Amino acid sequence: MFSIGIDVGSVAAKAAVFDGQNIIAKEIIPTGWSPRESGATLFDQLLKIAQIEKHQIKKIVGTGYGRIALPFIDKKVTEITCHGRGAHFIDSGIRTVIDIGGQDSKVIKLDAKGNVVDFIMNDKCAAGTGRFLQVMAHALEMDVSELSYIGKDASPQNVNSMCTVFAESEVISLMANGASKESIAAGLLESVCKKTYSLIGKVGTADKVFFSGGVSKSPLLKELLSKRIGTEIISSDVSQFLGAIGAAVIGYEE
Amino acid sequence: MFSIGIDVGSVAAKAAVFDGQNIIAKEIIPTGWSPRESGATLFDQLLKIAQIEKHQIKKIVGTGYGRIALPFIDKKVTEITCHGRGAHFIDSGIRTVIDIGGQDSKVIKLDAKGNVVDFIMNDKCAAGTGRFLQVMAHALEMDVSELSYIGKDASPQNVNSMCTVFAESEVISLMANGASKESIAAGLLESVCKKTYSLIGKVGTADKVFFSGGVSKSPLLKELLSKRIGTEIISSDVSQFLGAIGAAVIGYEE
Ligand code: SF4
Repeated sequence: MFSIGIDVGSVAAKAAVFDGQNIIAKEIIPTGWSPRESGATLFDQLLKIAQIEKHQIKKIVGTGYGRIALPFIDKKVTEITCHGRGAHFIDSGIRTVIDIGGQDSKVIKLDAKGNVVDFIMNDKCAAGTGRFLQVMAHALEMDVSELSYIGKDASPQNVNSMCTVFAESEVISLMANGASKESIAAGLLESVCKKTYSLIGKVGTADKVFFSGGVSKSPLLKELLSKRIGTEIISSDVSQFLGAIGAAVIGYEE
Repeated sequence: MFSIGIDVGSVAAKAAVFDGQNIIAKEIIPTGWSPRESGATLFDQLLKIAQIEKHQIKKIVGTGYGRIALPFIDKKVTEITCHGRGAHFIDSGIRTVIDIGGQDSKVIKLDAKGNVVDFIMNDKCAAGTGRFLQVMAHALEMDVSELSYIGKDASPQNVNSMCTVFAESEVISLMANGASKESIAAGLLESVCKKTYSLIGKVGTADKVFFSGGVSKSPLLKELLSKRIGTEIISSDVSQFLGAIGAAVIGYEE
């Protein structure tokens, strides 16, 4: 028997199949305009990839903001709980999850069993999220992936404003005054790091610290964050699937 | 003898001449790239308009963020103090000043003498400032002055995000879903009103309430704010010069 976790986020919908031991399949598609449709498409694709039939599924758990739009799920679980459980599944030593997504950021503290003991979430302010980097990449006329590594050897240009809107103007003035894109990019990653650190300050961290979400793909940001927290940070290629994996694990255990 | 107040803000530089009784002249120019240069130009223009000579000036007081760049001033006074004193000069009954400028917003509580007893300032977040309206006007393909009145007869479309960046995306989706620009504009003014009200909540208001800053030019916003606070709000054509007037009055009294 298998369980399935589906995490419908604002940007991408992710799903995972769990056999009680391993994640045997996973899939990601853009959420697009309709969380309901993309959830259904994702589900069908996942069954094909995993080569399983509907009757082999014991439980389907939905998470992410789009979970309410999924008619075929057995249970809804919050993102925070699923992220925590997903991280625990990947490495049971993880006690803190720092997740920076496209539109929000969160810090989750876990106990030894992967239960959430505390968390904080920012989904009200674009600063310190992927959205901030997207706006800045646009101002610098590059894409986000370029922005995330281009500053690796530059000395960071200080960007005073945390606010996405004011920082964007600052970046434009800095460029007009001849600052290099590399040094501005490095400064912007520092800014995300600072904002994240202020979020972390509200719940604290405990080892191991796991960095997930789209923004965790930047090795430079991971390094900066690690330095600021004063402890090593781990991440994983499957961190995008953390919520879906957690949902699948929770579904199996029920 | 005369005193002069100069308020160099991020967008405009304003100055006023006080003769101990009345403001006999005032002038406003864009700050541009150099607060120092625009301060000097403004000073020269002001003397011409007022038809006074340098030796007739007993004191020049500078305020606003650009005051540090003015070599010719006798004294620097904070914006908050100057705004308070300027409001008191305009109407000695004023006990609360709500100022929403291009880049910041503040609420100042005054005693019967125009001294500041409490204040709160937001200059970290573009939400609830003129900048928010500027970004939204751009998204709606109109200018800020159109945005500030176009929604007067519309039923406001709810805009959930306070954040400028997220609200901009929301506005774009609302338009794509066929909401009228009028109803969106009305919703956006509600948003500024809500944000301002949350700022007010931190210091409270006392009658009379004076509304100043560039954003106070919108009669609709004034009306909404007035309704929400539950008291009448006054404003003035010279409210842009509040800081400069206060600075001039302070200079004269010394
Ligand atoms: S600080 Fe800037 S990015 Fe954050 S909520 Fe305010 S407007 Fe949005």
